[in-house]
Amino acid sequence: MTKENRLQKQLNFIVEIDKLKKVYRQTFLTDGSRKENDAEHSWHLALMGILLSEHALHKDLNILRVLKMVLIHDVVEIDAGDTYCYAPERLNTENFVREQKAAKRLFALLPTDQAREFMDLWTEFEQRQTPEARFAAALDRLQPLLHNYITKGKSWQEHGITNEQVLNRNKYIGEGSALLWNYAREMIQKAVEKGYLQKG
Amino acid sequence: MTKENRLQKQLNFIVEIDKLKKVYRQTFLTDGSRKENDAEHSWHLALMGILLSEHALHKDLNILRVLKMVLIHDVVEIDAGDTYCYAPERLNTENFVREQKAAKRLFALLPTDQAREFMDLWTEFEQRQTPEARFAAALDRLQPLLHNYITKGKSWQEHGITNEQVLNRNKYIGEGSALLWNYAREMIQKAVEKGYLQKG
Repeated sequence: MTKENRLQKQLNFIVEIDKLKKVYRQTFLTDGSRKENDAEHSWHLALMGILLSEHALHKDLNILRVLKMVLIHDVVEIDAGDTYCYAPERLNTENFVREQKAAKRLFALLPTDQAREFMDLWTEFEQRQTPEARFAAALDRLQPLLHNYITKGKSWQEHGITNEQVLNRNKYIGEGSALLWNYAREMIQKAVEKGYLQKG
Repeated sequence: MTKENRLQKQLNFIVEIDKLKKVYRQTFLTDGSRKENDAEHSWHLALMGILLSEHALHKDLNILRVLKMVLIHDVVEIDAGDTYCYAPERLNTENFVREQKAAKRLFALLPTDQAREFMDLWTEFEQRQTPEARFAAALDRLQPLLHNYITKGKSWQEHGITNEQVLNRNKYIGEGSALLWNYAREMIQKAVEKGYLQKG
């Protein structure tokens, strides 16, 4: 393949993923003015990855791989849509199949080597077995927690979420970073005390 | 400083930069439905950096540094606002001073070592002297060009921009990548032929 052909395929993918800017999540911006989209969320996680990697459980993280994972982890939602993290269907096989199909379609736009790299990175992120994937997943959970706390539980209240659900969903932060999980647990505790989050 | 104190400073910065999601640019999303914001734009550039680095003039680019630069290059606009890339005031000392001041305020939220790293990266990006900064700047110019072409010149027409202005503004792409600059020039030529962009 000529480099011109490679470039055209890469740009086709780059243009296609512009759609991620229109996939809205349940998390509000910190000023509560509107919900955020997946592209903004992914940008935010990347900056968290750069700044917080010193707190990861594993000391020799490959930050570049963490960044690649958080930057692409949600692109499958272009086809599959955002499933709210506390929705029961999140754990369905159906949702997983939908996301797999989306990953195949989207990454196939790229030259084969890059398609394979992105599929591997996306799968690694989903499986949460490597230090990089665990840290990336911790960031992906901490960021909406911060937003929820700052907006006084705006999204939690909209969906009637309890502290048990939040603790259960976010305990994986501890697999990526003990310090971040401590911080998160204290924040959840304070959210209950302040009435941002219902006990249950 | 304890690691808890470091974390709190890092999170203060992370929460502060959420504001970038509300700084809107003149570029439209590729579907033309609305203008994009700086956070989305920065995410898009990071993915371009990952996928297109093989086309950089310089063969041993440090991709991690490219990604850091594109992820933070616009955060100063939280205070300074977005100045349209074809606006004459873009080259004013006043605009530069405003952005410098913003960089100082924002990065000072971070622990000293990270504040210094971010200030250095931001300055490097602005000065466009290293291979990484030149490639990052090429991406920053190519992305809005693509969006403008795909939306049939929507933003160019809104501002009465000519092909001379576009060529002049975007020639720096060539300092980062000959292949990307070839692609960009052909796109500009086609945009004129199709009437998306006026000659002048």
